[in-house]
Amino acid sequence: MAAGAAAGTVSPRSTRERLGATLRRHQEALSPRALRRTLSELQAIVDPRASEVEGSRRAHDFAQWYAKAGTAERRDCWLLMSEQFSPDPDVLKSAREQYEKSLGTAEELHAEVHMRRAFQTPRTRMLQRFAGAPDGMRFLVDLRAELLPQLKSERRLLPLDADLEHLFSTWFDVAFLELRRISWDSPASLVEKLIKYEAVHDIRSWADVKNRLDSDRRCYGFFHPSLDGEPLIFVEVALVDEISASIEPLLDESAEPADLLRATTAIFYSISNTQAGLRGVSFGDSLIKRVVETLKEEFPRLRTFATLSPIPGLRQWMAKNAPADLLAALSDPLALGPKSPHRQQLLAHAARYLGQELENGKPCDPVARFHLGNGARVERLNWAADPSPKGLKQSFGLMVNYLYDLKRLDRHRTLLAQGQIPMSRAIEDLYG
Amino acid sequence: MAAGAAAGTVSPRSTRERLGATLRRHQEALSPRALRRTLSELQAIVDPRASEVEGSRRAHDFAQWYAKAGTAERRDCWLLMSEQFSPDPDVLKSAREQYEKSLGTAEELHAEVHMRRAFQTPRTRMLQRFAGAPDGMRFLVDLRAELLPQLKSERRLLPLDADLEHLFSTWFDVAFLELRRISWDSPASLVEKLIKYEAVHDIRSWADVKNRLDSDRRCYGFFHPSLDGEPLIFVEVALVDEISASIEPLLDESAEPADLLRATTAIFYSISNTQAGLRGVSFGDSLIKRVVETLKEEFPRLRTFATLSPIPGLRQWMAKNAPADLLAALSDPLALGPKSPHRQQLLAHAARYLGQELENGKPCDPVARFHLGNGARVERLNWAADPSPKGLKQSFGLMVNYLYDLKRLDRHRTLLAQGQIPMSRAIEDLYG
Amino acid sequence: MAAGAAAGTVSPRSTRERLGATLRRHQEALSPRALRRTLSELQAIVDPRASEVEGSRRAHDFAQWYAKAGTAERRDCWLLMSEQFSPDPDVLKSAREQYEKSLGTAEELHAEVHMRRAFQTPRTRMLQRFAGAPDGMRFLVDLRAELLPQLKSERRLLPLDADLEHLFSTWFDVAFLELRRISWDSPASLVEKLIKYEAVHDIRSWADVKNRLDSDRRCYGFFHPSLDGEPLIFVEVALVDEISASIEPLLDESAEPADLLRATTAIFYSISNTQAGLRGVSFGDSLIKRVVETLKEEFPRLRTFATLSPIPGLRQWMAKNAPADLLAALSDPLALGPKSPHRQQLLAHAARYLGQELENGKPCDPVARFHLGNGARVERLNWAADPSPKGLKQSFGLMVNYLYDLKRLDRHRTLLAQGQIPMSRAIEDLYG
Amino acid sequence: MAAGAAAGTVSPRSTRERLGATLRRHQEALSPRALRRTLSELQAIVDPRASEVEGSRRAHDFAQWYAKAGTAERRDCWLLMSEQFSPDPDVLKSAREQYEKSLGTAEELHAEVHMRRAFQTPRTRMLQRFAGAPDGMRFLVDLRAELLPQLKSERRLLPLDADLEHLFSTWFDVAFLELRRISWDSPASLVEKLIKYEAVHDIRSWADVKNRLDSDRRCYGFFHPSLDGEPLIFVEVALVDEISASIEPLLDESAEPADLLRATTAIFYSISNTQAGLRGVSFGDSLIKRVVETLKEEFPRLRTFATLSPIPGLRQWMAKNAPADLLAALSDPLALGPKSPHRQQLLAHAARYLGQELENGKPCDPVARFHLGNGARVERLNWAADPSPKGLKQSFGLMVNYLYDLKRLDRHRTLLAQGQIPMSRAIEDLYG
Repeated sequence: MAAGAAAGTVSPRSTRERLGATLRRHQEALSPRALRRTLSELQAIVDPRASEVEGSRRAHDFAQWYAKAGTAERRDCWLLMSEQFSPDPDVLKSAREQYEKSLGTAEELHAEVHMRRAFQTPRTRMLQRFAGAPDGMRFLVDLRAELLPQLKSERRLLPLDADLEHLFSTWFDVAFLELRRISWDSPASLVEKLIKYEAVHDIRSWADVKNRLDSDRRCYGFFHPSLDGEPLIFVEVALVDEISASIEPLLDESAEPADLLRATTAIFYSISNTQAGLRGVSFGDSLIKRVVETLKEEFPRLRTFATLSPIPGLRQWMAKNAPADLLAALSDPLALGPKSPHRQQLLAHAARYLGQELENGKPCDPVARFHLGNGARVERLNWAADPSPKGLKQSFGLMVNYLYDLKRLDRHRTLLAQGQIPMSRAIEDLYG
Repeated sequence: MAAGAAAGTVSPRSTRERLGATLRRHQEALSPRALRRTLSELQAIVDPRASEVEGSRRAHDFAQWYAKAGTAERRDCWLLMSEQFSPDPDVLKSAREQYEKSLGTAEELHAEVHMRRAFQTPRTRMLQRFAGAPDGMRFLVDLRAELLPQLKSERRLLPLDADLEHLFSTWFDVAFLELRRISWDSPASLVEKLIKYEAVHDIRSWADVKNRLDSDRRCYGFFHPSLDGEPLIFVEVALVDEISASIEPLLDESAEPADLLRATTAIFYSISNTQAGLRGVSFGDSLIKRVVETLKEEFPRLRTFATLSPIPGLRQWMAKNAPADLLAALSDPLALGPKSPHRQQLLAHAARYLGQELENGKPCDPVARFHLGNGARVERLNWAADPSPKGLKQSFGLMVNYLYDLKRLDRHRTLLAQGQIPMSRAIEDLYG
Repeated sequence: MAAGAAAGTVSPRSTRERLGATLRRHQEALSPRALRRTLSELQAIVDPRASEVEGSRRAHDFAQWYAKAGTAERRDCWLLMSEQFSPDPDVLKSAREQYEKSLGTAEELHAEVHMRRAFQTPRTRMLQRFAGAPDGMRFLVDLRAELLPQLKSERRLLPLDADLEHLFSTWFDVAFLELRRISWDSPASLVEKLIKYEAVHDIRSWADVKNRLDSDRRCYGFFHPSLDGEPLIFVEVALVDEISASIEPLLDESAEPADLLRATTAIFYSISNTQAGLRGVSFGDSLIKRVVETLKEEFPRLRTFATLSPIPGLRQWMAKNAPADLLAALSDPLALGPKSPHRQQLLAHAARYLGQELENGKPCDPVARFHLGNGARVERLNWAADPSPKGLKQSFGLMVNYLYDLKRLDRHRTLLAQGQIPMSRAIEDLYG
Repeated sequence: MAAGAAAGTVSPRSTRERLGATLRRHQEALSPRALRRTLSELQAIVDPRASEVEGSRRAHDFAQWYAKAGTAERRDCWLLMSEQFSPDPDVLKSAREQYEKSLGTAEELHAEVHMRRAFQTPRTRMLQRFAGAPDGMRFLVDLRAELLPQLKSERRLLPLDADLEHLFSTWFDVAFLELRRISWDSPASLVEKLIKYEAVHDIRSWADVKNRLDSDRRCYGFFHPSLDGEPLIFVEVALVDEISASIEPLLDESAEPADLLRATTAIFYSISNTQAGLRGVSFGDSLIKRVVETLKEEFPRLRTFATLSPIPGLRQWMAKNAPADLLAALSDPLALGPKSPHRQQLLAHAARYLGQELENGKPCDPVARFHLGNGARVERLNWAADPSPKGLKQSFGLMVNYLYDLKRLDRHRTLLAQGQIPMSRAIEDLYG
């Protein structure tokens, strides 16, 4: 095997073959000539003769060209990055054979190491060069955000996506994230991002966001040194004296802030991921647990940690699982009185939806999946808790509290792994 | 295949077999019972039922036990970590077979992704949990520093070392390092570390280090957010008006600082790695280039960037390659006058050693290997440049300047890849 | 003289007499009993037996009581602070006599020192104790802001105001102010203050303020360590390629930011004091000069520094000095065509108002007074430069540029001191 | 009165006269011509036609000339600054007469304000311009440090000194000082200053200072924004489990740090002022009280706050007040056994010296004066507590603890003001 084909470098032969394939399947955007030039620029980034510093400089130049490129040109870039920087099949084959021979011998461990190295693709190295360039991480995260919606229709992008997800998982490991409080004293540019990224209860104005950062609130986000000033995820918390039953008082800008000395309960009422490009990299669990620790240190009197959460999948599930007459009666849920039988039926269905329904062994509601997966339990259903159009549309105005009982998180996770959703007696009773 | 044996988790069967093997080969330290308990604690760290947060908490507890463990017990831990957390062979086999079948089909790229995932070992996940614990990165770097000297005699530690090196390469990518100036206004605890880690010209006292941080000097280091306050590598620079020919004026504490307005030349006179545990992760090239950029911005008049470097391998090479009479005449090199033929012979040999001798295609002197690998060239040999006992012992008092000609770094790297060492005419003439 | 009556302490006799006077003239708010208690609390603050630390603690307690007091009670406090903490007349008399005797003798200098000490009032010491308490400076600045509007009707508050002004002049000397850039990355709470304090062109929304902090703008403020997070004064600057002739493009939120590489001119288009309580303490001159220096360093291509300023006193002056028919014709100045004789007449009057009219030897327009006092000159009148209702009302839509010609600032100041207003040839021509 | 002679400006007539006087008395250094030029440069600094910014620029130029001037030239500068920038006698006279007439009338308060303004000297304004220049505060503090030793022999410098002291008292009010912890993580340049400035127990080496910044120690200093990086005063504290009886364990570099969890007692074992030029401006009391508060917050278990202090004046006092045979017997105090009558006699004398002797109504020992003035009491005498040559020389090896009983500080201050030194029963018993 020639030196140029060593593990981690681009084998000329396979490149030629693959580029041929790419070109044959290729229909639009870059001309074959432009395609070849683009490929050679990408290859220069991982050219083993250039230093890392030089490689990152070339990556930076490429990113500047890319910033001005159109949609179709970008798609061509992704295909080149996905198809032209795979591991060398010859190298892989030889490593594989060696590994197979070694099984059970003293060489096994050594062969394993060798084989894993053979899988370190030139693509990985290329992406690392981008990450090393100024604003390179921003480039990669945005690139993946653009690429993800294309994945279903274009399977050839899969390896690039897989490499990105793998690298992001390593780079954005919670070990490297910094928990920071976001307050009204945070940069205006950061507060503006809360407005932009808030995904649960839209922020309507600067007065709205100021209210959410008032003295009886806390907001925390995870930040990464390579995406400075950008919260990767953030959570909004209200400090109150009992578990909140409605979102309205929390979003009421005219309300006086609560007295912190009387706060016994932290309500997590909104949690938003901000970077589409980081899909598959999860921070939410860690964020909530780090925030709980931080709050307990600042407010030793806090006893209860719970959410006030939407039930985004309820209406859709009801459409399939509830009787038609109930559905008809729910056209204006706010009009139903406390004794209305339809109200009771809706609550019973919602309790069943949250407390019994599993999909592939997991809760089917996405928000439930997240909090129950963290070890919380279903605590209480709240009628007319979100009377906004969105709240009515998703869940007939219902919201749910998930309770984080710090001493039972792992017990709850174990229950869930056994197919049993942890819940309060009150929820049980609802569909009992 | 059972759910529990999914890619990335520990297969019970293989664990049992491997622990048997470990126990059979095992001779010392932990009793089989203690060994089993330790293993189960390590396994708990990656238990898929526990959250990441919980996993890191367990890793932290383990690290605290480890801190008090003796040498032999630690060695047992390494063996467990190395042998008991490998990829599941069955999963690997199935992935491999699938991949082989897919070659040349539309499934190839997908199978490649799948196969790479199969290689993500539980060991990797365990090390990530450690990294996520407080002071966890410190723990891992120190663990590898302790483990490295054992590698030669105990090949079973190889997979653990390979995983650590791979993870460190990702985590300590220069993209995540921060260049910081170290000055006399830096924390005393950091300046103390310069004294401790300086590897080229020992720092003898606080007066010595203060002189190296004087107004005509610059010192820069790379820092990583997970090893706060710890320079991973640092370089000492003198700003002067010509290429330095001797280390003595630079280390003279009583000398007045040079006039910065007249500085045309930056001399890199010491570069030290500090973390034995990060062997194989290279920062030096990036450090020098980032420092050059930083200096050019602060001092636009700088024209020349060069080193004043030791030649650590010269005497050893001379012992094999120089005539006995020359070696005899070199017992007191400082006594040789400028016209002494032995002096000329020594310079000619040194020029040959630095400019012609290759070992596996690379310069044989380790310092030459580093700077030439970065694209520098051999510029000038300096007689009696380091008259200290160490300098005389290593290289008969000779030192060498490597020149970083910023416009030719890549050209020089290409020359070197072709087996030709770049050098100045003056060096060529010496052995001409 | 008794020890208790030493310079700087409260003489019991005078206190008694003065409190009697205060009580006799007193009509409202605090009862005589409450008044006596309040006085004794104020006296405790400067009690020489208490330490400075204890004095400031008492001042802090007092400030907390004051925060809840009503308007009339506060007014009583001011009277007590103003009348009850004057220098002791006996001490003053003795110092004065001693000083008079010393004139022309060797004792003169010593007696001067002694006399100045006799004037250091207990009031000063009391205010210093407040300043030493947490948030004490905020308390004093707000107290004076409240007190200032009462000064005209209540001359007895004069000494308190004079002491505050004197102390503020010392404490807020520009030597102790920090120049900080305010940007979109500054705390939201600080950006909100710009909205609140902007005094020239009202900020209508967060989009408006964001535009003023865009990449082609700079905003700088002076800050003091004892009023953290509070700009004392701030200036808004646009970086453009010629002297601005209208405020509209600068306030247009939809406009693209200008290209910084082409910027040759810095336009100061708004400067606002924020603390009413600091009246008489001037920072504006220093702010502009420090900002000019800072801008020149960041943008070496800047050549021209000028303002785009309102002419707040023009209409009022015209009402007295312009012929009735001209005034009538100016009811809709925007309707006047370029050749309209009324337009020319208005410009001529404005040029005369800015370039010739003096009041007590100073320019009569307050904005002119500020910039000309700093050494600027009247440069250009701009038609329809501020077509807002406020602009039309103040100055028929006219705005003026004052030019800061850095090499002539002192020459201009000298001219002005001689009663001659520096101006461009174009302005001269207007009323020539 | 001409405009040029307005309050706060230099009257030409008086200047001429005074310069004449200065020149007549003048004997050395600057020639009359140089003297006149220097004076005109100083006058330019306060020239009312120049802006504050320009004034400070001129002050900066002057300071740079001064930095290179010799001792005699500097002394001439001081005389000019002291004698040529006094208040205008005519202005003073007129203000005085007006004030006298106003006494008892409604004009009294107004006339008081006017009179105080008349005393604001051009000298003050000149010093303010210096303070506003870069490094100007450093210049003024150093100037006074140089000037102070000359005051006794040259009374003409008194007004300059008085103005400096007055301004420093205002500028360095504790309200504007920042308490910062100094640790081994503080800048090396700052730690170096501890070595330089420590005035009680000399710091012998970096190992010594590192020990004093170990985990069971705290060191705090006051800093001022205009003297950045310079502690004005600092205190060294040991956290221990009983009141320290000897300085030796505290200075023992080889001792293990104490267990912080068991610390009940904070021992202030060294407190040093650093700026000779700030004589008369006191921070010590505030420093100790702020440090006590800070320590109580960090270590809620601390119960006792005390010093371990030298008794610098003991030997000198003994020489006058002790019998000759006792003095003879004390030639080697460390040799005296626990039962030695001389030992008892020395302790009794020391107790009397600290507990009874007053000088002008204040404790005569300077360290006692400081701590008792702060409200501490004399707690315990410690035999052989400082066996260093300095300790033996000052106080026969004795040291004393002053106890800060937080609840009794003010009671103790009152006692002291009545001429009674607060002390423990044990001290009382010693001379009972």
